[in-house]
Amino acid sequence: MDGPDQLATMGADLGSLVGKMNTTLSTSEYASIVNMNLFVALLCACIVIGHLLEESRWMNESITALFIGLCTGAIILLSTGGTNSHLFVFSEDLFFIYLLPPIIFNAGFQVKKKQFFRNFMTIVLFGAVGTAISFTIISYGAINIFKRMNVGSLDLGDFLAIGAIFSATDSVCTLQVLNQDETPLLYSLVFGEGVVNDATSVVIFNAVQNFDLTRITTSDAFQLVGNFFYLFVTSTVLGAGAGLLSAYIIKKLYFGRHSTDREVSIMILMAYMSYMLAELFYLSGILTVFFCGIVMSHYTWHNVTEKSRVTTKHAFATLSFISELFIFLYVGMDALDIEKWNFVQDSPGKSIGVSSILLGLVLVGRGCFVFPLSFLSNLTKKNDHEKITFRQQILIWWAGLMRGAVSMALAYNQFTRLGHTQLRGNAIMITSTITVCLFSTVVFGLITKPLVRLLLPPSKTLTRMASSEPTSPKSFVVPLLGNNRDPESGTGHESVLHPSNLRVLLSTPSHTVHYYWRKFDNAFMRPVFGGRGFVPYIPGTPTEQSGHNLAPSAGNN
Amino acid sequence: MDGPDQLATMGADLGSLVGKMNTTLSTSEYASIVNMNLFVALLCACIVIGHLLEESRWMNESITALFIGLCTGAIILLSTGGTNSHLFVFSEDLFFIYLLPPIIFNAGFQVKKKQFFRNFMTIVLFGAVGTAISFTIISYGAINIFKRMNVGSLDLGDFLAIGAIFSATDSVCTLQVLNQDETPLLYSLVFGEGVVNDATSVVIFNAVQNFDLTRITTSDAFQLVGNFFYLFVTSTVLGAGAGLLSAYIIKKLYFGRHSTDREVSIMILMAYMSYMLAELFYLSGILTVFFCGIVMSHYTWHNVTEKSRVTTKHAFATLSFISELFIFLYVGMDALDIEKWNFVQDSPGKSIGVSSILLGLVLVGRGCFVFPLSFLSNLTKKNDHEKITFRQQILIWWAGLMRGAVSMALAYNQFTRLGHTQLRGNAIMITSTITVCLFSTVVFGLITKPLVRLLLPPSKTLTRMASSEPTSPKSFVVPLLGNNRDPESGTGHESVLHPSNLRVLLSTPSHTVHYYWRKFDNAFMRPVFGGRGFVPYIPGTPTEQSGHNLAPSAGNN
Repeated sequence: MDGPDQLATMGADLGSLVGKMNTTLSTSEYASIVNMNLFVALLCACIVIGHLLEESRWMNESITALFIGLCTGAIILLSTGGTNSHLFVFSEDLFFIYLLPPIIFNAGFQVKKKQFFRNFMTIVLFGAVGTAISFTIISYGAINIFKRMNVGSLDLGDFLAIGAIFSATDSVCTLQVLNQDETPLLYSLVFGEGVVNDATSVVIFNAVQNFDLTRITTSDAFQLVGNFFYLFVTSTVLGAGAGLLSAYIIKKLYFGRHSTDREVSIMILMAYMSYMLAELFYLSGILTVFFCGIVMSHYTWHNVTEKSRVTTKHAFATLSFISELFIFLYVGMDALDIEKWNFVQDSPGKSIGVSSILLGLVLVGRGCFVFPLSFLSNLTKKNDHEKITFRQQILIWWAGLMRGAVSMALAYNQFTRLGHTQLRGNAIMITSTITVCLFSTVVFGLITKPLVRLLLPPSKTLTRMASSEPTSPKSFVVPLLGNNRDPESGTGHESVLHPSNLRVLLSTPSHTVHYYWRKFDNAFMRPVFGGRGFVPYIPGTPTEQSGHNLAPSAGNN
Repeated sequence: MDGPDQLATMGADLGSLVGKMNTTLSTSEYASIVNMNLFVALLCACIVIGHLLEESRWMNESITALFIGLCTGAIILLSTGGTNSHLFVFSEDLFFIYLLPPIIFNAGFQVKKKQFFRNFMTIVLFGAVGTAISFTIISYGAINIFKRMNVGSLDLGDFLAIGAIFSATDSVCTLQVLNQDETPLLYSLVFGEGVVNDATSVVIFNAVQNFDLTRITTSDAFQLVGNFFYLFVTSTVLGAGAGLLSAYIIKKLYFGRHSTDREVSIMILMAYMSYMLAELFYLSGILTVFFCGIVMSHYTWHNVTEKSRVTTKHAFATLSFISELFIFLYVGMDALDIEKWNFVQDSPGKSIGVSSILLGLVLVGRGCFVFPLSFLSNLTKKNDHEKITFRQQILIWWAGLMRGAVSMALAYNQFTRLGHTQLRGNAIMITSTITVCLFSTVVFGLITKPLVRLLLPPSKTLTRMASSEPTSPKSFVVPLLGNNRDPESGTGHESVLHPSNLRVLLSTPSHTVHYYWRKFDNAFMRPVFGGRGFVPYIPGTPTEQSGHNLAPSAGNN
């Protein structure tokens, strides 16, 4: 009679349920619950400590999380006698499927759209051409230097992968050190580049699969460029389409009638679906979900109730905040994983050498495109104040040097099988990637804030910085009590409604595209998809009054 | 040179990333992305269709989700030629670790605390004694009837498990059919019972492991009762402790200074940690997270900024809403899983017989405790209007008959190994559980709403029901613009501040415990942990003014 055994299993499962968290953890289920508890407690500690350190000029929350992760890793390492240092095995799935989408979506949702689109061509130039230049330089340097250093069995594919991994700016790190309110130009350029170069990465990986890059022809090159534009356009259209669909559904079905939950759910689910659809069609999920966020903040957000607006604004920011902390804590904890360091402990000098060379290549590779491309971009601008100054160029170069969790996830994917490193060359590449990521995140990250203050005088970077209470990167002013500011908190948005603003708008020359977009937006898009001015604005429940006519109330207001 | 192959893997991973969702799915990674997309699309469809059907008197969102799940399962079954019907393998981990906690936490967060605590003794009576009675009757019936029916190799442990599985009310289903605003007494009794009987279940399972239930002595019985109270008290204290800690942290550290994200994150993480800690210590996670929700809505919620209040209120409700839809869609889709039905297709009559007997036992088992215990409970009440009328007893009996996802998760856990049913007896129990769950959820669920209208005249169930726009169970009126209502939206909360209300309060006899609690709360708890009246109330950022003195502002206001 095995009844008691079965019930024992059942009782244990009832009482101690499992927390695998998508990992291939081989410890018992009970241990994984202990780990989850510890991890959640550490996340709470990061928030509290990050809050206490906020006054500091140097620290930010991500570096705090990284340090806490490192300390925890060290404590676990010591307490287990040097056998284990992480609570979970780093999982690319967890990272790319659950942690990354909310961060990028929130960035799109809260981005200053006007600033972003004004610099759109420069961003694409940096993200596409710049990343390609950086990829070429880093790959070429890695091939030539590492082959002479005898770092183990690495082939051409590995070297090209190193180029691809280290040529891409980590958009999650960028969010941590640049402040959208203080340095809007830098933020939109560097973060925008980080989003766009995701598409470049996908193209480069496909190219490495399909072409022999050592004997590339002109037609191949054109095909690559074509691929990039195809990927860029389809990803953008998919993201915008998902955003517009959500706006249309909410506007037509008039969810506000009953429930905030439904509106918020639809927005979350549609945004997530856009990311997953992009992955389904081998597009760039990051680009897609970023543009979905932009479109949702422009249309959908104005169609929902006031409560839904406040909720989405902060719920998305909170999701993104927790995901970021999770990633940095995770990376910090994983960095001390003893298995990865076992292979290189007999030749520590080589690991340090490889890390330094990689860091150097990253520095050179980025420098080789930021300055020339900024020069090119400046040629197209007529006004002096629109040009990227040399000091700003230095900051763009510097702020994009950080390599973070994205790089680590890709390196693990390339150089590990089942989370364990078996070959010496692979082990060295993994430890070097960890070293580069930690060093660049901590050192470059710490220096960025003071560097911004040094190179951009306070008068330019808003007087708010000099006040006693600096606004955190997260604290957005949310429209709550008749305050008409919205996520697109650029100025001059009332242009169409107020002729005086329109004149100001037209007096600046680069706004012609924007002007035609506004006209198109007001004539065709907003009547169908909603958006500010086309949904009556009443604090509390703005959509309640138009309940009887579901047809778009175009023209009035 | 295997570079291209490695890069191909890498490119595929970059482009098509994995979506395992904690399942043991053996299909390719690409197929699981297809599945995730389909699942998210179905969730969106459920929301939209549920919204369109909301005017209907019969349907509710969960039954819609169940039907959509069944239809999708049927379509997949037909399109794959009868080999497969579900997108994901049902996973207890996914259910207990990720889907259940937000639902129960939100229920605690939004529950009408006054109504709940007024009926507290009755709820505990139903949840503890009632579930034990029901367990005894169902187990006894199953042993006697199924042994004669030759349903396969089931032992005593299996029969006791059947008793435990079917004696517990599914709190998730209860949330779907009962409306807190329309029938507050029924809601608090039936849902509260569902929460409390989770502790009972844990005790019963432990008892089955440690005692021979056929030869139980008086001291054993006392020990069981002691176990229940130990579990009940520790789980409650843990939940309340986590809630109080979050209130204290937020009040002391004054998070409102900068960021709503931190406050919301702390609340979410602390609530989740309370659940995981309960699982860690083999307590009842459901009880813990429920009381954590209650304490958080009483203290923590008043310490955060206005924006955080709106956000938490709706974000928690949305999380719970999505989780509920997910569960019902999942159950509907899983019900047609062909593997489970293969074993019983040669004897369909037996499966129907077993299902009917189980349904009958559930009906009888519940009847055997609702009416006697209601009679007992009525003996303690002096006022007639506080007694549970016979009509209400019928509704309590009826509304608690539904068996849902919790029952299915437990049945899978008991009767399957690795998601597949191998023994004939186990296969019959699985299919019977599915049948009972579907039948009770759909039929009992559909009949509950009309039954409430029939048995409780509209004058008693609020006139709101008769109006053209019924409020959905989710639509809470949230304090936004100086409206002083809070989650504990019972009346008479200003009692201590306004003597006139205090008099009304004291005129009703059963409020003495409540009165002393209020005194204690105001004298000791609120000065330390915050709460309404002890954090200055200013719309927008209520905590901004007390920034200079972090000491509790007791006594004033």
